[in-house]
Amino acid sequence: MRTVEVCLSPKLVPCFDLVGKTAVVIDVLRATSAMVTGLAHGVAAIRPVSTIEECSTWVSQGYVGAAERHGQVVEGFPFGNSPLAFQQAALKGQKVALTTTNGTKTIELSRAAAEVIVGAFVNLAAVVDYLKANDRSVVLVCAGWQDNFNLEDTLFAGAVVHALKPIFKTNCDAALASEALYLQFKDDLFGAIQQSSHYHRLAKLGIEEDIRFCMQPNKYDVVPVMQEQELVPA
Amino acid sequence: MRTVEVCLSPKLVPCFDLVGKTAVVIDVLRATSAMVTGLAHGVAAIRPVSTIEECSTWVSQGYVGAAERHGQVVEGFPFGNSPLAFQQAALKGQKVALTTTNGTKTIELSRAAAEVIVGAFVNLAAVVDYLKANDRSVVLVCAGWQDNFNLEDTLFAGAVVHALKPIFKTNCDAALASEALYLQFKDDLFGAIQQSSHYHRLAKLGIEEDIRFCMQPNKYDVVPVMQEQELVPA
Repeated sequence: MRTVEVCLSPKLVPCFDLVGKTAVVIDVLRATSAMVTGLAHGVAAIRPVSTIEECSTWVSQGYVGAAERHGQVVEGFPFGNSPLAFQQAALKGQKVALTTTNGTKTIELSRAAAEVIVGAFVNLAAVVDYLKANDRSVVLVCAGWQDNFNLEDTLFAGAVVHALKPIFKTNCDAALASEALYLQFKDDLFGAIQQSSHYHRLAKLGIEEDIRFCMQPNKYDVVPVMQEQELVPA
Repeated sequence: MRTVEVCLSPKLVPCFDLVGKTAVVIDVLRATSAMVTGLAHGVAAIRPVSTIEECSTWVSQGYVGAAERHGQVVEGFPFGNSPLAFQQAALKGQKVALTTTNGTKTIELSRAAAEVIVGAFVNLAAVVDYLKANDRSVVLVCAGWQDNFNLEDTLFAGAVVHALKPIFKTNCDAALASEALYLQFKDDLFGAIQQSSHYHRLAKLGIEEDIRFCMQPNKYDVVPVMQEQELVPA
């Protein structure tokens, strides 16, 4: 029987054996929500890069640059990681180079997996269907906030664990805890997030609308999958 | 207002500023339960050491040796980390050198704190009273299992957060999640632990009686505090 495990922080990736498995990278607020939204609205590919310098290099090769640090758009870039901005028609058919505080680093750290996909509430059902349909065990990798645990990524991981459980087994305390938290908060995900540290950080930046958007399940049917260093629709 | 935060794994200690705070090291199954039990039954002091070699060195200087690895007593040592064994009258007045898989390492990693105490369900109320009575902010540091998250330490952290909350504030997602998990499982802590990965590991070793013991709240009134590299009753 396939297994599902939850890694609660990028710092804990070394605790997991990713080989042969599907890694689902989760950065609900807001990197992976933005990636899903972009691809759903016709972005051709998204290249996650670790540094702002690398992002600039890809811009000079024709990519649209998107760079976020500490919740804000980096000066000189047209986009940060707001999923609402990734809905723009101007991005249709474009390739985007994206660097974010936590999300892109976590993708990099998950490269030992047989495949890396990204998930967020906006594509929850699509991720679940994708994982059920392929034949690999799964590690859900939460990007967290500056290497620490965060609530929103854990709740999403718990939603996936809950949906997979009839056909996947788990012997992972973080999976058990994530699912328990999701079941406790699922009827008011936005309310749960309003209690979180990240909400307070982001709300100060005036992006409550982004947060509401990111907590809506199943808006999009697309599953971004890493292929040759870029995320494309599966 | 003082703050309370929860660090879910030794790997995440660098995410926290321990300076000037009280660190509560938590390794419910079984290191910190054993430490509390030993001091409650008259052990004079417990010296947590990282390696088996170091433990042997202290034995040659008159300490009683206690060494556990992977849930079992290390060959050649009279004690491991079973709290039941630490009740023995023969230990009364003795000093013990103790090395365990996760707990002693976590104490070492928490040394930046103004003071380090250890907690477990067996001294829950005593820890809460101690933290309320002194004037420091608190970081609850879960030892976890081989650097990863575990359920039992998180539930204990949640119990402490819940008890402190009227007079401490928190802006820490792990504190919020720990408390939510504790409130969900508090009426059947042993049942919760029976679902955990650690339970299955330890139950195979035939120590279910130890686990039941460790999940009993408020058996002892003692708070072990680090003084000159040794744990003594506060």
